[in-house]
Amino acid sequence: MEQRTEIANLGEFGLIEQLTKDIEIVNSSTLVGVGDDGAVIDHFGRQTVLSSDLLLEGIHFDLAYTPLKHLGYKSVVVNLSDIYAMNATPTQILLNIGFSNRFSLEALEEFYAGVRAACDAYEVDLVGGDTSSSGKGFIISVTAIGEVAPDSYVRRNGAGVNDLICVSGELGAAFLGLTLLEREKKIFETTGTQPDLEGQALIVGRLLKPEARKDIIAYFAESGIMPSSMIDVSDGLSSDLLHLCKQSSTGCVLYEDKIPFNEEAREFAYKLKLDPTACALSGGEDYELLFTVAQTDYEKIKANPAISIIGYMTETDAGCNLITRGGNTHALVAQGWNHLK
Amino acid sequence: MEQRTEIANLGEFGLIEQLTKDIEIVNSSTLVGVGDDGAVIDHFGRQTVLSSDLLLEGIHFDLAYTPLKHLGYKSVVVNLSDIYAMNATPTQILLNIGFSNRFSLEALEEFYAGVRAACDAYEVDLVGGDTSSSGKGFIISVTAIGEVAPDSYVRRNGAGVNDLICVSGELGAAFLGLTLLEREKKIFETTGTQPDLEGQALIVGRLLKPEARKDIIAYFAESGIMPSSMIDVSDGLSSDLLHLCKQSSTGCVLYEDKIPFNEEAREFAYKLKLDPTACALSGGEDYELLFTVAQTDYEKIKANPAISIIGYMTETDAGCNLITRGGNTHALVAQGWNHLK
Repeated sequence: MEQRTEIANLGEFGLIEQLTKDIEIVNSSTLVGVGDDGAVIDHFGRQTVLSSDLLLEGIHFDLAYTPLKHLGYKSVVVNLSDIYAMNATPTQILLNIGFSNRFSLEALEEFYAGVRAACDAYEVDLVGGDTSSSGKGFIISVTAIGEVAPDSYVRRNGAGVNDLICVSGELGAAFLGLTLLEREKKIFETTGTQPDLEGQALIVGRLLKPEARKDIIAYFAESGIMPSSMIDVSDGLSSDLLHLCKQSSTGCVLYEDKIPFNEEAREFAYKLKLDPTACALSGGEDYELLFTVAQTDYEKIKANPAISIIGYMTETDAGCNLITRGGNTHALVAQGWNHLK
Repeated sequence: MEQRTEIANLGEFGLIEQLTKDIEIVNSSTLVGVGDDGAVIDHFGRQTVLSSDLLLEGIHFDLAYTPLKHLGYKSVVVNLSDIYAMNATPTQILLNIGFSNRFSLEALEEFYAGVRAACDAYEVDLVGGDTSSSGKGFIISVTAIGEVAPDSYVRRNGAGVNDLICVSGELGAAFLGLTLLEREKKIFETTGTQPDLEGQALIVGRLLKPEARKDIIAYFAESGIMPSSMIDVSDGLSSDLLHLCKQSSTGCVLYEDKIPFNEEAREFAYKLKLDPTACALSGGEDYELLFTVAQTDYEKIKANPAISIIGYMTETDAGCNLITRGGNTHALVAQGWNHLK
């Protein structure tokens, strides 16, 4: 039988000690980490970038099909993605968690193992945070801190007319993974049939264990690209592209046939009678980087197979439009995942 | 009738715009605030201090007697207190909130009004965060960022043998405020009798609207005091003093008759048949600064009436002891508020 240590027996400080004992500091800018009132970070000569996200059980994740280790990994990665989306390099995180007495120490250690795996993979330091009991459910709040050379950060508001719209990787797979897992959960609840995830490792993996595009930021630095605007794709391509347009005061033209889609995911979309384009536009949780560059950067962008050019920015009066495969023009609408509805 | 705007009608981005539209940036180090993937802070030549806390409805606060505006104020202040406890000056905060559909826009605006009041009072900028729906309850996570001149931060682990133990202000009142409000809530629930808070403004105020000791940090800078260790009193004097001793590898002697207590609060303690000393030792939520200084700083400390000298550090073998008014010696035990039990 698996061990189950009641957290009440450890007390808060015992729990923190237990959960943070294996943490190693990798960034020399980390002067003080876990275990004091605050963490201290030395950013002499650099600029600091910060981002914070809340992840709530029943809203952002379902523990019926989310392993705690994956959840820990993802909680970190989605925050780091925001730091990369500023063209910065993440260096530290703070982690707050709240949990009910349904969670044992072993469960929290699983979660922290995922957190540590992400910290290792992205070379960031966990430097502090807070643990608390919660009346109900698992509550996660992560704050990521990054650094950037002076004035090299990229905002959402710098795109110019005729700038190329680019996106990293492939879109829509995480939404399909979510759709599959939700379907299998319902089948399990009503019939007791175990999930059939055969051959769906890609889409499930994209949902449960996303990665942030550290490589793209590194490519920008290597090849001397400075995007004019950037955002990470968390709410869906259309919603996030509309953010860039609104904040940059531009319109846009987006080509349906240029939207990058994984073949395996595309086949699964057809199987579920879903439109792959709709999955990419409205699905979200891809954590790819959506950015714009000047046309003069065209050759540099083309040289990287992980980046697709999917359209261009226009005058704001031209509106935000999608050109379909059939050549029709549709206004882009934000149908991102609205968890407030 | 009061206006009630359903948040679902605004959408997440509409809500964020609504809640953050009045935010003004006061720190020149704030390069990018709310509205991008991350905030950008310029800390050239200074060190950055970070702290993050989770505040959960039903665990850390009870909305039956906590006005939302006070809650917003307190959520910020308790985090700033951690930054001051590092001898640093807070400059920015990030705020994540989760809330169920029981909260209207007006309710959230009340909360944000309190957040803004605290930001104004302590001259910090709200630079980002996340808003989300929650299945149940109000969830708050605040991350505070501060700056400190290189290597001027004060940790918990630097106290030496014979250092004086000092504390700002008065202790125990917040716990009495909590005891009073919990009692009045029970009376109201069972008999419908409205709360009798007559003459208890001080203790209720200390609980609902605490302040962080910015003035003490300023005094350190003015008078050239560099504490050897410091912590803020959030879990109760005994628990927090034991943290300093453990991390500094010292013992301590604490004098009961030196513990600062407000007269009004003391009288109320007797009325409730509570021991004022126990309230100070185990109550918590005082947000006073507990620190140690070398004996050579004695005159400088005595010159500030807001600071009490309450004991001294000893060799670790001597243990951590309380000398009672009657002259007896008791081992100090951490009976801080353990919300994991």
